[in-house]
Amino acid sequence: MVEVQSITFPEGITLQCGEKVAPLRVAHQTYGTLSPKRDNVIVICHAFTGDQYVASPHPVTGKPGWWSRMVGPGLPIDTDRFFVICTNVLGGCMGTTGPTSERAGTGRPWGKDFPPVTMHDIVAAQVKLIDHFGIDRLFAVIGGSMGGMQVLTWATDYPDRVFAAMPIATSPFQSAQNIAFNEVSRQAIYGDPNWHGGDYQAHGVIPARGLAVARMVGHITYLSEEALTRKFGREIRPGTVPSSGDPLSALPFGGMFQVESYLRYQGSNFTRRFDAHSYLTISRAMDFFDLGSEHEGNLSAAFRGVKTRFCVVSFSSDWLFPTSRSRTLVRAINQAGGHVSFVEIDSDRGHDAFLLEEPDFDRTIRGFLNGMARQAGLSAGECDNAV
Amino acid sequence: MVEVQSITFPEGITLQCGEKVAPLRVAHQTYGTLSPKRDNVIVICHAFTGDQYVASPHPVTGKPGWWSRMVGPGLPIDTDRFFVICTNVLGGCMGTTGPTSERAGTGRPWGKDFPPVTMHDIVAAQVKLIDHFGIDRLFAVIGGSMGGMQVLTWATDYPDRVFAAMPIATSPFQSAQNIAFNEVSRQAIYGDPNWHGGDYQAHGVIPARGLAVARMVGHITYLSEEALTRKFGREIRPGTVPSSGDPLSALPFGGMFQVESYLRYQGSNFTRRFDAHSYLTISRAMDFFDLGSEHEGNLSAAFRGVKTRFCVVSFSSDWLFPTSRSRTLVRAINQAGGHVSFVEIDSDRGHDAFLLEEPDFDRTIRGFLNGMARQAGLSAGECDNAV
Repeated sequence: MVEVQSITFPEGITLQCGEKVAPLRVAHQTYGTLSPKRDNVIVICHAFTGDQYVASPHPVTGKPGWWSRMVGPGLPIDTDRFFVICTNVLGGCMGTTGPTSERAGTGRPWGKDFPPVTMHDIVAAQVKLIDHFGIDRLFAVIGGSMGGMQVLTWATDYPDRVFAAMPIATSPFQSAQNIAFNEVSRQAIYGDPNWHGGDYQAHGVIPARGLAVARMVGHITYLSEEALTRKFGREIRPGTVPSSGDPLSALPFGGMFQVESYLRYQGSNFTRRFDAHSYLTISRAMDFFDLGSEHEGNLSAAFRGVKTRFCVVSFSSDWLFPTSRSRTLVRAINQAGGHVSFVEIDSDRGHDAFLLEEPDFDRTIRGFLNGMARQAGLSAGECDNAV
Repeated sequence: MVEVQSITFPEGITLQCGEKVAPLRVAHQTYGTLSPKRDNVIVICHAFTGDQYVASPHPVTGKPGWWSRMVGPGLPIDTDRFFVICTNVLGGCMGTTGPTSERAGTGRPWGKDFPPVTMHDIVAAQVKLIDHFGIDRLFAVIGGSMGGMQVLTWATDYPDRVFAAMPIATSPFQSAQNIAFNEVSRQAIYGDPNWHGGDYQAHGVIPARGLAVARMVGHITYLSEEALTRKFGREIRPGTVPSSGDPLSALPFGGMFQVESYLRYQGSNFTRRFDAHSYLTISRAMDFFDLGSEHEGNLSAAFRGVKTRFCVVSFSSDWLFPTSRSRTLVRAINQAGGHVSFVEIDSDRGHDAFLLEEPDFDRTIRGFLNGMARQAGLSAGECDNAV
């Protein structure tokens, strides 16, 4: 049994859709030490299928934390200096209340009856935890992809509580193409023989094939065409082609391309650690996200009066959340008279680049946090000279 | 019962994989009149899920032919002048022998036992039909997407029999990303409850959900991000959102985005006219395609001695078969000392643009065919002045 750090709020949370989820449990991991003034807090928001294990081994897979190269002592997000909190999102399946949690009074999990959540709800759950810790203001909120949607929601919903914000490889709205890919994933799950109209938990099964297909779709969109070509090209997986003895035929009849093998592995591996209803709930929360729509389509209105200092980061080969979306965001913040800097990192690795070794990106994060720390009057960290 | 134009070859065809398919039926449509010298023949090769009904109504859906705006009297591919032949590809499901055809001596369809086919096999089946018609040399071969792969195969496998060739929105090889999307589609089909290990025909069912998901994936890749945004944006399908009475919530809880509705429609519609085994067979034929690999990775060697005049066409926003692939192709033909011109059509509609109203594209086809007709010494058509 994995021990999960969490706080339970018996009163629960009332969601934007009007429904109430109670109790509310918020699972989280923390790194570093909270300063006496409680002014050194960085909230990291995870992406779609991420979790709170940002810099510690994943309890199911045993793999290192998903950002362990970025978060730790002396690293760009320096835990010798900052107190880092990462929560599992509302609707997730790693300890925070979601479809796999027991619905009070029923003895059964929420399952398909878990209500729809939004980025506002996801961040509101995080706010409850921050309040519980007695933290008034965050030094910074940082997140990539869907994590970036949470960063934008934090800064616009709680403008007085966020000093600095880094929305990374993200967008102020979910695009038609993003919705379309999510819809393919959802249909793959609905079409699984183990779906049972959403009641798979009652049948003691999981819609693993559909969930694997969903994950495969995701993986393609996370990588650039160049990265897929460099990683796999048209290589054949060894041992999958029956030797035909025909020297003329170099074709892999019956064989498997490496890229297929990779996707199958990613797909089936994923089903060990992720719940289908959580997948559906969170993908829908992303689809709902559209900051401008809440201000009659005027995105800059969302940033009116927001004093948060933003550093927007995009990656040149990211086609899921392309640089053009970050530019739209930067323009809107500028129009609202806000503080914003913008960096496009040159990388050919696609959306996934924010999780990979990209020295320019590391320098951007380290530099922004150090600069902001000076502005916020935080005591100088040892890493200041490392910029 | 739909009457299908077809020729049956009792001797069948021996495939590249070594297996034999007999008899071989080649279903086709023709338009225009074969000239006495049999020198005015244009073969049009259809794309992945296309068919021979290039300029006549589809017998299942009743919709106009897929290129009826391009092929006909006075149109860019002018049937007052040219004799146009379009065959259903080997492995297809519109009359040419494929998985839905009866396997001789068994009283049952080939189904999952239909052998793997390649572009070479697909074109070899077309050659049998051309031979049957007593046609020595084609004036031109034209095709987009997978049709373009056939065009390239025609010109390199039968260099003396093709005067002019237009590979459109295509590539000399299937990329890792293209294989990856095809693999997602295949896994969606394999995961369908009606798949029955490939024996769905024996069970009297079709894996419709999986096939629909496959089609949805395809549709996303056929459109540019811009086209999806322009067509659908974040519009909600009317009537799908329960009115909550909450004026604060503009969110479509329980509702459906237009782009989702569109994809579901495209997906379910497709299953009425396409067979899952055909889908798998043809998607695999595309994945196998790699002209250079047959010449130790030297693509230009494939074009050595080829006298065919090529006009390569790409579309600027096509991300499935991007312009860079066409440039690779053009460079290889040039290196081999071949004849090639290249046009990139400026369009924001993605891969699908070759099927849509694009005046520059029409002019390119008309101009190339007229110029080639003069070079080939064909009698001047009435359309010559229309360029």
